[in-house]
Amino acid sequence: MAVPRNKKHENFSEWFEQVTLHTMVYDYRFPVKGCGVWPGYGFKLRKNVLDVMRRLLDESGHEECLFPTLIPQSLLGKEAEHIRSFEGEVFWVTRGGFTELGERLALRPTSETAIMPMLKLWIKDYKDLPVKLYQVVSVFRCETKATHPMIRVREVTTFKEGHSAHATYEDAESHVWSMVELYKRFFDELCIPYLISRRPDWDKFAGAVYSIAFDTVMPDGRALQIGTVHHLGQNFSKAFDVKYLKPDGSHEYVWTTSYGISERVVAALISIHGDDHGLVLPPNVAPIQVVVIPIPYKGREAEVYGEARRAYGELKAAGFRVVIDDRQDATPGSKFYEWELKGVPIRVEIGPRDVERGTVTLVRRDCLTRTACPWGELVNYVKQLAERITVDLREAAWRYLKERTFRVRSLEEVAELVKARRGIVEVPWCGRGECGLTLEEGLEAKILGTAVEPVMVEGRCVNCDREATKLLRTAKTY
Amino acid sequence: MAVPRNKKHENFSEWFEQVTLHTMVYDYRFPVKGCGVWPGYGFKLRKNVLDVMRRLLDESGHEECLFPTLIPQSLLGKEAEHIRSFEGEVFWVTRGGFTELGERLALRPTSETAIMPMLKLWIKDYKDLPVKLYQVVSVFRCETKATHPMIRVREVTTFKEGHSAHATYEDAESHVWSMVELYKRFFDELCIPYLISRRPDWDKFAGAVYSIAFDTVMPDGRALQIGTVHHLGQNFSKAFDVKYLKPDGSHEYVWTTSYGISERVVAALISIHGDDHGLVLPPNVAPIQVVVIPIPYKGREAEVYGEARRAYGELKAAGFRVVIDDRQDATPGSKFYEWELKGVPIRVEIGPRDVERGTVTLVRRDCLTRTACPWGELVNYVKQLAERITVDLREAAWRYLKERTFRVRSLEEVAELVKARRGIVEVPWCGRGECGLTLEEGLEAKILGTAVEPVMVEGRCVNCDREATKLLRTAKTY
Repeated sequence: MAVPRNKKHENFSEWFEQVTLHTMVYDYRFPVKGCGVWPGYGFKLRKNVLDVMRRLLDESGHEECLFPTLIPQSLLGKEAEHIRSFEGEVFWVTRGGFTELGERLALRPTSETAIMPMLKLWIKDYKDLPVKLYQVVSVFRCETKATHPMIRVREVTTFKEGHSAHATYEDAESHVWSMVELYKRFFDELCIPYLISRRPDWDKFAGAVYSIAFDTVMPDGRALQIGTVHHLGQNFSKAFDVKYLKPDGSHEYVWTTSYGISERVVAALISIHGDDHGLVLPPNVAPIQVVVIPIPYKGREAEVYGEARRAYGELKAAGFRVVIDDRQDATPGSKFYEWELKGVPIRVEIGPRDVERGTVTLVRRDCLTRTACPWGELVNYVKQLAERITVDLREAAWRYLKERTFRVRSLEEVAELVKARRGIVEVPWCGRGECGLTLEEGLEAKILGTAVEPVMVEGRCVNCDREATKLLRTAKTY
Repeated sequence: MAVPRNKKHENFSEWFEQVTLHTMVYDYRFPVKGCGVWPGYGFKLRKNVLDVMRRLLDESGHEECLFPTLIPQSLLGKEAEHIRSFEGEVFWVTRGGFTELGERLALRPTSETAIMPMLKLWIKDYKDLPVKLYQVVSVFRCETKATHPMIRVREVTTFKEGHSAHATYEDAESHVWSMVELYKRFFDELCIPYLISRRPDWDKFAGAVYSIAFDTVMPDGRALQIGTVHHLGQNFSKAFDVKYLKPDGSHEYVWTTSYGISERVVAALISIHGDDHGLVLPPNVAPIQVVVIPIPYKGREAEVYGEARRAYGELKAAGFRVVIDDRQDATPGSKFYEWELKGVPIRVEIGPRDVERGTVTLVRRDCLTRTACPWGELVNYVKQLAERITVDLREAAWRYLKERTFRVRSLEEVAELVKARRGIVEVPWCGRGECGLTLEEGLEAKILGTAVEPVMVEGRCVNCDREATKLLRTAKTY
């Protein structure tokens, strides 16, 4: 379990790979480039994160479904923009057994083109609308850029993709914004801060009318896209001929949207909250929320172990995900090290002094501060502490994002900040596509798009000196 | 929602496809051969079935994990028997984007060869053993035989594969039998009857020392394999060089097992319990356990709807998966039809007479019998009825399997029964492989193997007339 410490801000990539490996959250040593393994502990973390999303989607009237992995080439190619964007990175199945396939099958890079033919079968008239569904699946992209564990992978194992169909443009639009709100709640529950931008036209999802994206800033100062919501207009419904019967007897193409998150959310969670001791996990998604560690003292072992088991029992009964580490062949110090590494939010220590005083000691993983807790208050204290930790993690994360968000007015300033990977930089912009593209090229950075929230823009475009109409965001990205 | 009735035993294939389609359990119209879609209702049923399995595996010390989908050709080929058996039906990814891949990647047909390289990294010494893990994933087989929805598909979407590693042959062996016991509990909870056979050597899993299989009989008299448990010996550990350090300082290859179920379990569940009115689902896995239907009467609508909502509220609060169908534009009769089709185990009807008497009417889906239930007893009655339904479904299913299992002594009898697809036929057998193979060929049926339970065998081998030592099972299969 030895993992190098003190490195998150020095060498973030190595910190990430080492911490996820040594905690058995993610093992990136699988012998296919860009493919990682989720061992037990990581699988539980991933599942808890997904369960937050599932709850939000289920509550908002979505149905979880499962569509096939393989998409025929002809189907994937139906929407022209879509295939143009994806064809360079699609994995193709060309052989089955010893035989060449009649038609090549794509490993889905995303599922719009798998879902539309089914919507065509399922949607008859306006009473069938809206349709709101989602699935959690693997999607595949033969990335040509450098791969990174969890962040840029060839098998995205945790693709939660939502899809909807509506009777009007406006219904679809209003669904887009309600999904933006849903994603906000999702990221808030995970204590992950974000900026929401409308992606520039040249970088929207292939086949979308427009794309709204959530970005956060990683410890190395690069922006990471962690969620997107797309208004797809009638682009896919026309390509796939998905119509509905209106009350007036006429037919219209449905209006669709799609929205996704991936294991990048888990990567952001780990990266933003983690520290030089290892993982720091928000209590609501931590696979283990509390670890009870007896601190035995010669002659007092029976009492200490007994009280530790009692604490474990009480917390278990109260519904916490709790373990007791009563191994006798490991020192308390080595146990602290291990469970800190694993990011367990609260440690309960019970030593001889606790036994005497009728207390237990609670230690927070995030800041390592200690509280003495009277026995009768154990469950209450742990509950309150978990809430406190959640609030503090969220605040610290937002503070970090704010420190890493800059608003400047000159090309020199933005160039310098972006080059130094300081975070996300906001500049006044004229709003013209050609100007944005020139800027993107000049900065060797990504244009994230314009702020979605209403924001006062004053002054001149940082690039062309015309009057500014929008606030543009740019950053080095993954 | 109109679906042809009275056909399960006349035309089982059509019954199955129509019932699953019209209940939105499974839509097999996806435009890739052998690939089906799980819409919302089916997804929930599938999830509930999987949750039973997950609970049993988690309780027995397994960890859920997730391994990649793509397996390099060289890895898949490491265990000689394994690749020999699978290479005829592996889907191969040969291109990424516009480029031919350096090495072909298989879509996993099963994951032994993806898991072994990771076990090699994870297992150091005897303290790391046993390892018990599982995953629920899609596996892919380019079936050359005729495909059937859920039963013989090219993308198996619900492959629960367990894998274990042990220090000794005996530990692995005892794990095999404890997994057989676990599968028995699983099928018992789903009210699915089974025969457990040791597969003949020529039909064991590719790379196994031996394979134990669960078979059931479908309504058309064909046997369906619904679960398998394999002792893999050191075949895979030697091929992948997975060793552990023993307490005495020497190294030994680990001993592994694997065990799987698939959506065939859902297919069996639907086929065995369903009837000519549609699905009949055991309450523990039914997506909806109770439907409340008000039967309004002129002038008494408010009371009836009020009482129906009250019943809904009480059942909801008691933790049942319950819906109320209070649509005013549908007749009670059409509602009965729909919810019977969907297999909801218990219907609660509330009409004006119930209101007067202070009762509600409970109707069982399986046998359509009615019970009047006093208001104060609603939750209790529903609970007891659910238990009664479960017991009755299980008994009826086992009765069916027993009626469809024959024990005969002559070649003529077995040939006739098998040809007529009457079910599974047991015959005395000499135990010699060459004799079994001749028999299999002659019967144009499958040899399922020998009974696992101790059983008295008397008389002469049905095929070669030598002294019989084993009870052999044979049937037409899927």
